[in-house]
Order: sequence, then structure tokens, then C-alpha cells
Amino acid sequence: MTRHVLAIDFGGTKVALGTAAVDAPDGRPHTMMRLPTQGAAGALQVVERTLTAARELLSTPAAVGVSTFGVVRDDVIRLAPNVPGWDGMALPRLLRTEFGDTPVAIDNDVNAGAAAELRWGALRGVDVGLYVNLGTGLAAALVAGGRVLPGAHGAAGEIGYLRDSASAPAFADGHAPLEEAVSGSALARRGSALLGREVTAAELFDLHAEPGVGELLDEALDTLSRTIANLCVTLDPQRVVIGGGLMGAAPHILPRVATALTRSVPFPPHLTTATFVDDAPLVGALALALALA
Amino acid sequence: MTRHVLAIDFGGTKVALGTAAVDAPDGRPHTMMRLPTQGAAGALQVVERTLTAARELLSTPAAVGVSTFGVVRDDVIRLAPNVPGWDGMALPRLLRTEFGDTPVAIDNDVNAGAAAELRWGALRGVDVGLYVNLGTGLAAALVAGGRVLPGAHGAAGEIGYLRDSASAPAFADGHAPLEEAVSGSALARRGSALLGREVTAAELFDLHAEPGVGELLDEALDTLSRTIANLCVTLDPQRVVIGGGLMGAAPHILPRVATALTRSVPFPPHLTTATFVDDAPLVGALALALALA
Repeated sequence: MTRHVLAIDFGGTKVALGTAAVDAPDGRPHTMMRLPTQGAAGALQVVERTLTAARELLSTPAAVGVSTFGVVRDDVIRLAPNVPGWDGMALPRLLRTEFGDTPVAIDNDVNAGAAAELRWGALRGVDVGLYVNLGTGLAAALVAGGRVLPGAHGAAGEIGYLRDSASAPAFADGHAPLEEAVSGSALARRGSALLGREVTAAELFDLHAEPGVGELLDEALDTLSRTIANLCVTLDPQRVVIGGGLMGAAPHILPRVATALTRSVPFPPHLTTATFVDDAPLVGALALALALA
Repeated sequence: MTRHVLAIDFGGTKVALGTAAVDAPDGRPHTMMRLPTQGAAGALQVVERTLTAARELLSTPAAVGVSTFGVVRDDVIRLAPNVPGWDGMALPRLLRTEFGDTPVAIDNDVNAGAAAELRWGALRGVDVGLYVNLGTGLAAALVAGGRVLPGAHGAAGEIGYLRDSASAPAFADGHAPLEEAVSGSALARRGSALLGREVTAAELFDLHAEPGVGELLDEALDTLSRTIANLCVTLDPQRVVIGGGLMGAAPHILPRVATALTRSVPFPPHLTTATFVDDAPLVGALALALALA
């Protein structure tokens, strides 16, 4: 009988579960499930309902891969303020208790996305690379030696906290300055305020001819492009992969980033979109599990 | 007879050579020599005079470590526009021709400085670290897994090319934007223009009470501190080590950097001055050689 691995992605509004055979040739999950987090009801119930669902999906996984928002540090979740009870939760311990001797890997959603690209996607065979996730939030994963660099506290690549100017707010005051300026949620918020009606970031890109919208997007894309170029100056990658929900607007975004790379980086890396956009963290969790199986 | 290694540091204005026993307990060179580069006479004569001096210093080294300004990429020197003929020179090949089967390691001066700190200094035992060199120029070395990350083209950490604002000049136009704003040479140039007389960066820090000087230093240190904090957000190091000639002004610089780290970095790293300031690249070249011996 073919052994299977289990993947779990804890997202801000939903949990996704998937399985795959240990000899899976690509990142497509074999079976999949989704649960709403019902985050307002607390974090532990999310974990409990997820583990119940996991038992139904696959009773004896060969290995388990888990991705989560926030970062994993010293066996607890950090930098995850948006779901009550998630920040500080000992998720790794809860998983060990559930799965016993079955190997379990856990990483944050963006590092998991990068792991998916390394195993099956746009970072395959890449030694030094950069993965940028432009979604509701903004974060990156640094790749060196063909592996995701976790950093000393699991927080490498948390570029939402970058400060782009002397007047930017700071982490210590409860801010994620860059994420508040150029992420999907930031663009939606800023665009909605500008237009006087609720718009998503994706809608905003379609409205770029409306008064003020072009300027807003111009400024945000300038900041984003300069940031990605600066990351490339710092890391000197051979390839930059951009994923996340905003990639629906890739034709607006990628040319700007490409220009910034060419102008600002001594050895400009190859720029490409991610192979996995939807479900990237779940596919990444599969990659984490398969690395252990 | 104790075997010895040879270290060579090619600097912009001088070449330093040193030797050490293979069981050297610290980074102090056993013998040392210095030569002026006489860079205007061309790059090859620098190399030839250096190799002649090296033969006199140590006839049969167990290994050779070499540090140079610029970066080493695909067996040639790049990003070294300031000494005629250095950019594009096949220094690694010249060294192999000279030293034959003797192992030779070559890296840029800042990565070499970081190697010295890793072997004997402030980065000893550090897994993820950042080394920043505040000298005439501005550059950094990224450390992960206890090793300097070279990047895909040998240019990781070349933070002099970072662009701090949308109006900053770019590499493609022949600029090193951040280095032109906050390095030792930039401070000397900006301070001299302000005061109407030639001052060095070190002198400028002593003149901080003079009209305009405090503001100039404030702005430069704000930019520098924010840059270092942003690098720490990106890499998530456990330790940041600052070296280079500007460390004479460490009491002016370090508290500003420390404040920026505390305010801006989710997991603020430990901040310290480098163990090796003078001759750091030569000590680093010794470390490179000893790693091969």
C-alpha cells in the first residue's frame, strides 16, 4: 500500500488539509479539505477541529507538514496578532502530542510557499533565491544553498516590518510599516478610502485610470519594486519568484519590478511568477512533509 | 618545522601581506608587510610586486588567503571601479599560476573581515549574523549556518547599492546610492562641502556641535541605523557586528543603531563592535588561508 503524507495549512480565515502519496510527482494534493477557522471562537478550537478532520482524512500519515501564519519560534507561534490566541500558542507541541512518533515539520506560510517552489516550481534547482509573497500581507523567504533560511528566530524574510523612510511607524509601536503601505490589504484600505467605497486590491488595479488611483498604485509599486531590488542587492539571488494573491495583477506589477532590478541591482536576477499561487502554503506543507517521509 | 600560511589583502591604496603558523591561536599575523598600490601605474604591477614580496616573505605556504576590494565573480574581479585595471582582472587565475597546487582562497575584503570575526572574533559560534563594515566604503556580509553567504554572483551584502528613496540615483547610472550618502568617504565629502574645508569623517564626528554638522550626522546616522535595522528584519540575525574605520566614532554611532534595532526589529539581535578593526581584511585573509591549511 502506498504511504501518504498529511499537509495542513492554518490560514487567517480558513484551514486547508491535503494528502499526497510519498512518491507524489508534483505538488497536487491527492485529497483536500477546507474548514473555516471561526477564529473569534478561539485558537484552540481551530486546532482541535483541524486534528479531528485530519484523523478522518488520513489515519496513519507517513509524515506531517504544517504551515501557519505568523512565525514559529522556540516551539510557539509569534508575530500572529490577527487571530485571538494564535500568537504565543504552542502549536508544535500540540502537533507532537497528536502525531506521536510521526515526523512533523512546521513553518510559516511564506517559507512553506518557497519550499513548494523549491521542490516543484520556479525555484527548482536554484541555489540562491528570493521568494516574495504579495497577498493580503507582505513577506518573503530567503533561499541559500537550495534551502529556505529560517533566521535566528524563525523571522527571516518578514519584510512587512521594513521601514522605508525616517517617518515610517515602527514595529515597537505595533506596526508592520511596509505591509501597511503596499500589501493587498493596504491597497484595499487605501483604495477604499480614496474612492469612498469598498474595493479589493485586485479591483483597484482595474480602476487605475480613475482619479488618484494611478498615483496611489504608482507610489505603492515604486516602493514595492525598490524594496525587492534592495532585497536583491542584499542577498544577490540568481532568481526572484513572486507569488501571492496579487499576482492576478502581475501585468501591472512585474514590469515595474523588472525595471527596478535592472536599474538597481549589480547582477540582476531572473524574475518570474510563482508556479503555485492558490494554495501555495498547503502545497508547501506537502513539500515539508515529503521532505520527512 | 611549523607550516605557515600566507595572507594578502589588496586594498585601494595599499597591499598588506602577512603570515601565520597553521596552528595560530588568534588572528595576529606572524610577520607583516605593506606595499603602496601605486594604482595609477596599473593593476598588473600591483599584483606582480605583491607576488614578488610574497615569495620573499614565505617561500612555500601551506595555503594562501586573499582579500580584495570589489567582488569576486566567475574568476574575475567586479564592482571595483576605483583602481584602473582592477575591475575585470582575472586575479584568481593569476594566483593559481603563481601558487600552483597550493590551495588559494579569495574573497572580498568585507566577507574576509566577517571570516575573521567568525574564526576569532565577535561572530564566533554565531549561526545567523550580520557584519557591517563602516569604512571609506559601506558593505556588509551575511552569515548563515556559521558561514559567509557569497550570493549567486559573489555580491551578497553589497549594501552600498541600496536605494533608500524613490529619488536616489541607481547602480545603472554609475552610482552606489547608499555608499554615496553615509560611508566614510561620503561623510568626508559632505562635511567638507558644508564646512568649506577638508575634513575626514572622523573629524566630522568631533565637530558635531558646529552649525549644520549635527544635522548632517543626524540624517546620515538615521539612514544608516534604519538600513541596518532593515537588514536585520530581512535576515533575522542573532548578532550584528559593526567594524571598519568609522568605529573610532562608535560612541556616536552604536547607540543610534541600537535604538533602531530595538524599535524596528521583531527579534532585536545583539549589537557589538568588531574585534578586528585595523587590518580586518588581512586578518580575514589569514582566516581564509587557515580554513584550507
